[in-house]
Amino acid sequence: MALIVQKYGGSSVADAESIRRVARRIADTRRAGNEVVVVVSAMGDTTDELVDLAKEVVPFPAGRELDMLLTAGERISMSLLAMAIKELGFEARSYTGSQAGMATDARHGSARIVEVNPTRIREAIDSGAVAIVAGFQGFNRGTGDITTLGRGGSDTTAVALAAALNAEVCEIYTDVDGVYTADPRIVPSARKLSRITSEEMLELAAAGAKVLYIRAVEYARRHGVTIHVRSSFNNNEGTLVINPGDGESMEEAMISGIAVDLGEAKITIVGVPDIPGKAAEIFTLVATAESNIDMIVQNVSAAETGLTDISFTLPKADGEKVMAILLAEQEKIGFDSLQFDDQIAKLALVGAGMRTSSGISAKLFTALFEAGVNIEMISTSEIRISVVTRADLVEDAVKAIHTAFGLDGEELAVVHAGTGR
Amino acid sequence: MALIVQKYGGSSVADAESIRRVARRIADTRRAGNEVVVVVSAMGDTTDELVDLAKEVVPFPAGRELDMLLTAGERISMSLLAMAIKELGFEARSYTGSQAGMATDARHGSARIVEVNPTRIREAIDSGAVAIVAGFQGFNRGTGDITTLGRGGSDTTAVALAAALNAEVCEIYTDVDGVYTADPRIVPSARKLSRITSEEMLELAAAGAKVLYIRAVEYARRHGVTIHVRSSFNNNEGTLVINPGDGESMEEAMISGIAVDLGEAKITIVGVPDIPGKAAEIFTLVATAESNIDMIVQNVSAAETGLTDISFTLPKADGEKVMAILLAEQEKIGFDSLQFDDQIAKLALVGAGMRTSSGISAKLFTALFEAGVNIEMISTSEIRISVVTRADLVEDAVKAIHTAFGLDGEELAVVHAGTGR
Repeated sequence: MALIVQKYGGSSVADAESIRRVARRIADTRRAGNEVVVVVSAMGDTTDELVDLAKEVVPFPAGRELDMLLTAGERISMSLLAMAIKELGFEARSYTGSQAGMATDARHGSARIVEVNPTRIREAIDSGAVAIVAGFQGFNRGTGDITTLGRGGSDTTAVALAAALNAEVCEIYTDVDGVYTADPRIVPSARKLSRITSEEMLELAAAGAKVLYIRAVEYARRHGVTIHVRSSFNNNEGTLVINPGDGESMEEAMISGIAVDLGEAKITIVGVPDIPGKAAEIFTLVATAESNIDMIVQNVSAAETGLTDISFTLPKADGEKVMAILLAEQEKIGFDSLQFDDQIAKLALVGAGMRTSSGISAKLFTALFEAGVNIEMISTSEIRISVVTRADLVEDAVKAIHTAFGLDGEELAVVHAGTGR
Repeated sequence: MALIVQKYGGSSVADAESIRRVARRIADTRRAGNEVVVVVSAMGDTTDELVDLAKEVVPFPAGRELDMLLTAGERISMSLLAMAIKELGFEARSYTGSQAGMATDARHGSARIVEVNPTRIREAIDSGAVAIVAGFQGFNRGTGDITTLGRGGSDTTAVALAAALNAEVCEIYTDVDGVYTADPRIVPSARKLSRITSEEMLELAAAGAKVLYIRAVEYARRHGVTIHVRSSFNNNEGTLVINPGDGESMEEAMISGIAVDLGEAKITIVGVPDIPGKAAEIFTLVATAESNIDMIVQNVSAAETGLTDISFTLPKADGEKVMAILLAEQEKIGFDSLQFDDQIAKLALVGAGMRTSSGISAKLFTALFEAGVNIEMISTSEIRISVVTRADLVEDAVKAIHTAFGLDGEELAVVHAGTGR
């Protein structure tokens, strides 16, 4: 008998009918002879609605209380789901994050899991019940307070439970039926991958692919959990995210996919004195904003002036804050001016096969040139090449690259509305 | 420094603006130098809405899961209230029933408190914070499962916390500004009582007065908690519900109030053999329906037939069930027929002074006779006289009695919409 952890996002349990549909799928899995632990997000837009309600009461809700508030969301979906499963003749019991033993640190709103003690969950499945666990939430053992894991937290809950219970697989149900070579909304000929390594998935997620959250993939990679990304709207096989050394040998595809991120902006610091330690000074300063700085490019300095330009990308929402911090220290750093550009797109090509293949960059740059797309920044890792382009050209860019690398498939992707969170 | 427990019902925290208003009142109490523990119900109609949602998913939601679901309601109101208090510059922290140490038995939907261990609440107030506690909910130590206390549970939570923390007073905020000599909606000249004994309050609550739930009054009486019933919409002094031996000596009013209950129906069993053990047989049978049988009247048996009629009142909702149980055993019991009547009203006159006064019944019956109201059933306790009348005459009946006993006041009552639950 295999133990399967299934995670259903908010769009999969958006209303009574969806909840009954998910319950039938869980009952089928149980009927097939599996033990099932289910992790569930809040219904539809409940979490956003609760945040709005808090902001109606006070402009800046306190972290501890906001976590207490938001955890009401999964409490509702999980108890309804347990009722629906019982109605189908299978025993089911719902458990909060604390009841499921999700111990976290005390960072409200973005807590990290420090230990998982799923004693009650183990007892539930040993007694033949389906255990429904609230995603996204935990508790701090020191204070006894309720915490939440932040965006994508339910994916992380599912993977962490799968690891702690030594589950065979962690199935993440979403509104897309797997991981695609590119976002099917942009590239209709995108192909579903039957498998991908967690390393590649990490690069794709980091580069903006929304199908899985980076923290969940990291956790799965560190604890050797196999993730199966699939749709809750059909029974298609999805995409297996596997770990090297799983016993799963795989021919490494040269390129697994292309991710696009439209949430970044670019700041250029113009006329920086090109002297040692300047970059360190600048980025130490920028770090105080706790923004997620990604690509950094420094131009070759002009010999006659001894000045250079430094550009970097960061989440659009952090732009104002970082610009203000830099401007406040303009004299000390000694730069001429700042430029802010939020009309950029970041595009990343990911593939474990890059390690052993050459000419990938050349092929990428040629495809972009032929599509008339200018490259503004470049950065690379062992298995990823990222470029920054104009935002309004990124669709052409992705399609051109997708075709150039032979990724186009014949079947059209099945995509459902909603985000699956 | 006095410790005050305040309980706010759903209508007092129905929206963001109400929550801020309640927060200001709590801040005022804190500012006046008191320690404050607040018990809060779910916002407005949240609990009913959650029940409806559950019934959309399954026809008969399982008790454990329904409790898990419903407790989301107070989680929302209590965290929002804590945010609003913090915004006013006072430290505040919200606690679930389990965090507040509300240990109950395992009866889902109607759990009884078995022990209160408010360690975390005590720590919170010792540290200078306002502690906000979810009303209506607890947990069972044996199973670790979440429970709810049933209707009026938040009142009981407040009184139980006041007892465990040895609070000076338990303030119950509602939409009426105290306990009245009669329902001000029926008798506009009803007078607010400045104080009433818990014994009288118990009789009034048992007789249908909605201002306080009977379980909360029982708990207060048993543990010597003083309740102050007041309105969250103004600063008027409300009604103190005090316990004999509180050191509070009081002149016992002959009559404290009149309660009306329109939720009852009457079943009459016609033609029952008047032989010993028959009544026992009938009510043992009726007891299997677990209905709350109230008044029972047996007519004098007609000598020529040896048959009698037995009538009793019960909640309207239980009528069908009890009728079916009786009909199924008609032959064995040997009665002629059954009559069901849901057009009755139960009216109770309560007053501790009855013990030492005579002529109260005569005065009551005379008032009803003069008002043209027929009495169908009568039952009495030491400090209460209850009668059953036609439902459509009860308003006339209450007004007549209210005037006959000199209860009419001059000031009109302040009543707000909503039920305060």
